Amino acid sequence: MTIEPNTSQEARRRIRSGEWTDPTAGLAPGFVQANLAVVAEDLADDFERFCQLNPGPLPLLERTEVGSPIPVKLAPAADLRTDLPRYRLYRDGTLVEEPTDIVTLWRSDLVAFLIGCSFTFDAVLREAGVPVRHLRPGGNVSMYKTNRMTNPAGPFAGPLVVSMRPIRREDVDRVIELTASLPIAHGGPLHVGTPDLLGIADLSAPDYGNPASVGEGEVPVFWACGVTSQAAAEHGGIPRMITHAPGHMFITDLQVTR
Amino acid sequence: MTIEPNTSQEARRRIRSGEWTDPTAGLAPGFVQANLAVVAEDLADDFERFCQLNPGPLPLLERTEVGSPIPVKLAPAADLRTDLPRYRLYRDGTLVEEPTDIVTLWRSDLVAFLIGCSFTFDAVLREAGVPVRHLRPGGNVSMYKTNRMTNPAGPFAGPLVVSMRPIRREDVDRVIELTASLPIAHGGPLHVGTPDLLGIADLSAPDYGNPASVGEGEVPVFWACGVTSQAAAEHGGIPRMITHAPGHMFITDLQVTR
Repeated sequence: MTIEPNTSQEARRRIRSGEWTDPTAGLAPGFVQANLAVVAEDLADDFERFCQLNPGPLPLLERTEVGSPIPVKLAPAADLRTDLPRYRLYRDGTLVEEPTDIVTLWRSDLVAFLIGCSFTFDAVLREAGVPVRHLRPGGNVSMYKTNRMTNPAGPFAGPLVVSMRPIRREDVDRVIELTASLPIAHGGPLHVGTPDLLGIADLSAPDYGNPASVGEGEVPVFWACGVTSQAAAEHGGIPRMITHAPGHMFITDLQVTR
Repeated sequence: MTIEPNTSQEARRRIRSGEWTDPTAGLAPGFVQANLAVVAEDLADDFERFCQLNPGPLPLLERTEVGSPIPVKLAPAADLRTDLPRYRLYRDGTLVEEPTDIVTLWRSDLVAFLIGCSFTFDAVLREAGVPVRHLRPGGNVSMYKTNRMTNPAGPFAGPLVVSMRPIRREDVDRVIELTASLPIAHGGPLHVGTPDLLGIADLSAPDYGNPASVGEGEVPVFWACGVTSQAAAEHGGIPRMITHAPGHMFITDLQVTR
């Protein structure tokens, strides 16, 4: 664990000011990054249950008080309405807007959930000498809906979403072990090697994020992904749900420990 | 997912009647098994946070209402005071008693937590043709304290505990993949092969459960374990905490989905 005070705060300041509107991969390395999901109070218990029943894609890190956009545990000085680079608004299961803040969309009956993200382990992989290709300014991973279904809770259901990283064959065992130690970032991969087995027909056409090609000597490695909550918003036709835009995460003050 | 109505209920009935006081490995295959941790109301939020910060060993499945021993989500007809085969009472971090029910120990200010358990995936492994040696009447896994520390929350802290299964070398890849799909049961292994790297000096002397020998052609495979909460009770000197006895789990009505 390295202590780099203010690095998460500095990243959030740049995001809040509008200076940074890109994906957060590689920002503030060593700090835990998180998915955001915001639902109305009447759906909050169902959504929390959805996380509990699907701790692989949705490791719940914090639930805010009703009406509060302040994550008092993970970053008490932050504001979830402004401190992510890009958001998504879903109405009746349809994506209708991708704003860079949600100040005017916020309401006193909303509850925010912060959920672990695989960007958290990218820094760990790079530190261990494993190349992680999307770690360049503005880079994003490839994310895919799979043929595996989540355990439903209330109106929340739908396919498991995974992220994919092309990994050199000789690094795979080490990558499995390194990420297995970080369940807060989805833990070890769900699958290595064969996209077909997850119902992914074309790696070059991800459902979210950027395409990535798997080079010579590399294999595709798949991790459970927090964008599963967005697939649930779509699948369940949730009346109103706000999330981060895929790859545009919340950077917490919590540091990675292994 | 197979539907076997009443199997979990039947197992709990045998346990409640006192007919079954052994470990629950292999009972009610296909049903999710759970660790129990019971703390006073004033420590409940800290304990929940401890689970959230350590979702590998402590995937939280349910938190009961204050004073209620009824897990309304996972098994509404069950009673957590009687439906586990054996319990542990810790006082000031010391194990003082191993009763077969906690009816007289229950109080109106207690909160119970149910946490995922690796026994849940044993049935999945066996169904896939992987031998799981402790799956015999009364069998228990080997569990060890490691040199890895948990992320602390309030007074809860201490070493990560792992369970170990000897796995045939040719089955290891499949076992990694099968268990990675069940984060509700700790997900994929944390480590394969070298106990030393986890600070485990002697596999034949587990801290909890039964010894297991690793045979010719087998390797030891280690998973995060919910007994981590008992190590935290010890480490933190928690004034009063009730848990299941290692391996003597709560059998829920939730069925395994993959």
